[in-house]
Amino acid sequence: MNETARLAASVASMDRALIDDLVAANRMLASLGILDAFGHVSVRDPKNPKRYLMSRSIAPESVVASDILALDLDSQAVHPEDADKLLYRERFIHGEIYKVRPDVNSVVHSHSPTVVPFTVTKAKLRPLLHNAGFLGLGAPLFEIRKCAGHGTDLMILTPDLGKELAKKLGKDAAVILMRGHGDSVVGPSLPNAVFRAYYTEINARQQLQAMTIGGPINFMTKAAAMTSNDAMLRASARPWALWRKKALRELGS
Amino acid sequence: MNETARLAASVASMDRALIDDLVAANRMLASLGILDAFGHVSVRDPKNPKRYLMSRSIAPESVVASDILALDLDSQAVHPEDADKLLYRERFIHGEIYKVRPDVNSVVHSHSPTVVPFTVTKAKLRPLLHNAGFLGLGAPLFEIRKCAGHGTDLMILTPDLGKELAKKLGKDAAVILMRGHGDSVVGPSLPNAVFRAYYTEINARQQLQAMTIGGPINFMTKAAAMTSNDAMLRASARPWALWRKKALRELGS
Amino acid sequence: MNETARLAASVASMDRALIDDLVAANRMLASLGILDAFGHVSVRDPKNPKRYLMSRSIAPESVVASDILALDLDSQAVHPEDADKLLYRERFIHGEIYKVRPDVNSVVHSHSPTVVPFTVTKAKLRPLLHNAGFLGLGAPLFEIRKCAGHGTDLMILTPDLGKELAKKLGKDAAVILMRGHGDSVVGPSLPNAVFRAYYTEINARQQLQAMTIGGPINFMTKAAAMTSNDAMLRASARPWALWRKKALRELGS
Amino acid sequence: MNETARLAASVASMDRALIDDLVAANRMLASLGILDAFGHVSVRDPKNPKRYLMSRSIAPESVVASDILALDLDSQAVHPEDADKLLYRERFIHGEIYKVRPDVNSVVHSHSPTVVPFTVTKAKLRPLLHNAGFLGLGAPLFEIRKCAGHGTDLMILTPDLGKELAKKLGKDAAVILMRGHGDSVVGPSLPNAVFRAYYTEINARQQLQAMTIGGPINFMTKAAAMTSNDAMLRASARPWALWRKKALRELGS
Repeated sequence: MNETARLAASVASMDRALIDDLVAANRMLASLGILDAFGHVSVRDPKNPKRYLMSRSIAPESVVASDILALDLDSQAVHPEDADKLLYRERFIHGEIYKVRPDVNSVVHSHSPTVVPFTVTKAKLRPLLHNAGFLGLGAPLFEIRKCAGHGTDLMILTPDLGKELAKKLGKDAAVILMRGHGDSVVGPSLPNAVFRAYYTEINARQQLQAMTIGGPINFMTKAAAMTSNDAMLRASARPWALWRKKALRELGS
Repeated sequence: MNETARLAASVASMDRALIDDLVAANRMLASLGILDAFGHVSVRDPKNPKRYLMSRSIAPESVVASDILALDLDSQAVHPEDADKLLYRERFIHGEIYKVRPDVNSVVHSHSPTVVPFTVTKAKLRPLLHNAGFLGLGAPLFEIRKCAGHGTDLMILTPDLGKELAKKLGKDAAVILMRGHGDSVVGPSLPNAVFRAYYTEINARQQLQAMTIGGPINFMTKAAAMTSNDAMLRASARPWALWRKKALRELGS
Repeated sequence: MNETARLAASVASMDRALIDDLVAANRMLASLGILDAFGHVSVRDPKNPKRYLMSRSIAPESVVASDILALDLDSQAVHPEDADKLLYRERFIHGEIYKVRPDVNSVVHSHSPTVVPFTVTKAKLRPLLHNAGFLGLGAPLFEIRKCAGHGTDLMILTPDLGKELAKKLGKDAAVILMRGHGDSVVGPSLPNAVFRAYYTEINARQQLQAMTIGGPINFMTKAAAMTSNDAMLRASARPWALWRKKALRELGS
Repeated sequence: MNETARLAASVASMDRALIDDLVAANRMLASLGILDAFGHVSVRDPKNPKRYLMSRSIAPESVVASDILALDLDSQAVHPEDADKLLYRERFIHGEIYKVRPDVNSVVHSHSPTVVPFTVTKAKLRPLLHNAGFLGLGAPLFEIRKCAGHGTDLMILTPDLGKELAKKLGKDAAVILMRGHGDSVVGPSLPNAVFRAYYTEINARQQLQAMTIGGPINFMTKAAAMTSNDAMLRASARPWALWRKKALRELGS
């Protein structure tokens, strides 16, 4: 069975445009410096909310359409022909969040570079830039020691750890910080999850700089954060269009 | 009516060289990291000071000549064929400033990354680098809460908010900081407004670094800032020529 | 004797794939900003553990296959046809470490930019990012003044200085900091040494940022660092595959 | 008289290889982020030490061979056909230094971004990275207010200001900091002056980071700085070869 035929079979129930979007999302997040060689992005299958799409386990920057596969919400490959594929070890982050957050249709897990320092200090990451109003929904910190002890590699390697993470994320938050590791960001759409992953990093940089200048920092009010979040749900389309075009141009070259 | 004909009609009263300059300005500001997928730059129509040119609402990095349209000072599209175009929601920043500042012929609104921290802290942004002498004209902070309450998305979405912003900018300043949002920078010409937008960011970075080293900071005197501002009005031509060449080369590719 | 013939002779006992890997490692470390025009990377010859491979003395970013040569553990060129090659003056770092650390099969010496500040201050570089768990093996500081006085150029120019450095590295550590100079990073494989050199820099950046936010910093426990180090020995393969592909693509162009 | 003929006449007494070196130096310093659209680099004419070569007044990144011209030590164009060329307004920095420092054969003037904060604060820029040992020769601060009052644009626009700057540089220093402006860096050769301009910036970044971590900072001793400076006079050749190749490759494209 050649690669083209395999792809055809694998994506029988998937939308090719969605796959292209997911490929683009992988590449743009790498290009934006949110993902390095690690991390992953997924999107819930709009035709079957009990499935999600994600790449097999490779560096996001390398992902092409034939790397995308479907997983069920227990994070197992759906199609028999994907049974031999190496899956991301931390895919349970995605599946377990999709189970308990029906409002979420996309998840980005990254080692967002300037978010990491906020996961090992006491300062709270709070919205100061209007694009990052979604941080007003909360950005809880997941301390893996509390449920898995002091000796893990900090990774979400089991369904149970995925459930704990999803529980800590809660019903409302768009971002969960993961101590010594990075963050996971969720959104109602792939473009919005990418948008939020990017602006979580930007807000972290600017909050760090504001702390360097010296407080008190004039953070957004809860009301402003919510208004801004609503506006950005719509505004996410603009950076998405730009970044997608650039990602696919690079892919074409 | 095809795209070429549409463009011909739309720009009947516009100077093609000016349009090319404005396209280049959009791209160079993105390339310089002053604009990300948001923000906008405009130029007053030299043939009709009651109009200004600006792109339709897309990411600045994507702007091409056919995206440029003419607006009146109430920030409405002038040409009937542009009636269906999506306009930048915050275009009132531009129109309202042009109304009250006849000395201003170009406006850049951005989320300049290192300027944002100075909008949420008490430190004043002041000129320390000679290229940024224009900051000696003042860099007032616009706190949108004072005129629109605590629940807005921080954006300038109405003519009234534009008027308030223009009022706070005042008669002399080249830069107005917008709390939790970014800044708007004005100049007597497009090259100079771009120059000022760039050096506002650079001065912010260097002021942040100087604060990290530890004060007191030896800022420019008012007199030196004014002398330098005059010199830079002329010197703006050099970076403009370089950045324009690079922006248009990229556009050609 | 032409270049092709010379190369054939020189690499008679070397594996061409290993040479390509080493070329790629040089280029990727430059591309990642770990190496500038200085620094070097080596790999122990898997067929003869008393030899190692390294470029002749040029900027890492410029290295091609014909620049690679074999050295013995006294850091002398093995092949007579390499006798006239200029060797890295600090190659003793590599040879002397290979002598006393049989577990080490690759060494990277760099002026890793954000590691340098940690070599001239009292703060200890400690693991906070799970990818950098190997820092839990220790990151001792080599103060050259203690063995060579106050007037050296800080470089490891003799076998004796190489021995002192290797002694300070000790039996377990993956990284040794070199005061006012940079670091040397070791690993059981070339991909892992490159991985560790990269994440030493990333952890340094994030530790610096965490210190800016303000302590106490929630560093990894020793147990977590060891578990993570084990996981990353395997996970090194993923960034290696990505970086190698990019480095060789650049080389092809 | 066409451009080719003009160039031939202008460079009659100049070495084409030296011109190519100077073009490459302009471009590499821009590429390295030391020069932005402003700043300039010069080299003393090895055949006539009372002359130096420099570009006409354009952005360094744009310089090509036909932009290079010869100036005398009063910083006037030597060749009649260059009489109509726009010269850098601050060229007196170069000419006046060449007059009093026979050991100097190249000068770089830049707004080196992380050096500027050290020109407006009280911290001294001191060598901590071995490549920057030349800072042990001193890095005096030129405060233009002391000789030209409080109202200048901080630029070195006259021979007299150039003389004052050269006087403050003194007999030994390799770097002079210019308050609110940048620095000027000198060396015995073009490659070494470029090397020093680059490592002045790197050392400034690392000193700023070390100050963020917290002192005391373990700076180089005077003896080590001098030994390292000697070593780097020779080692400058390696980055020069790399950067020149890259600059000229870019020029060819």
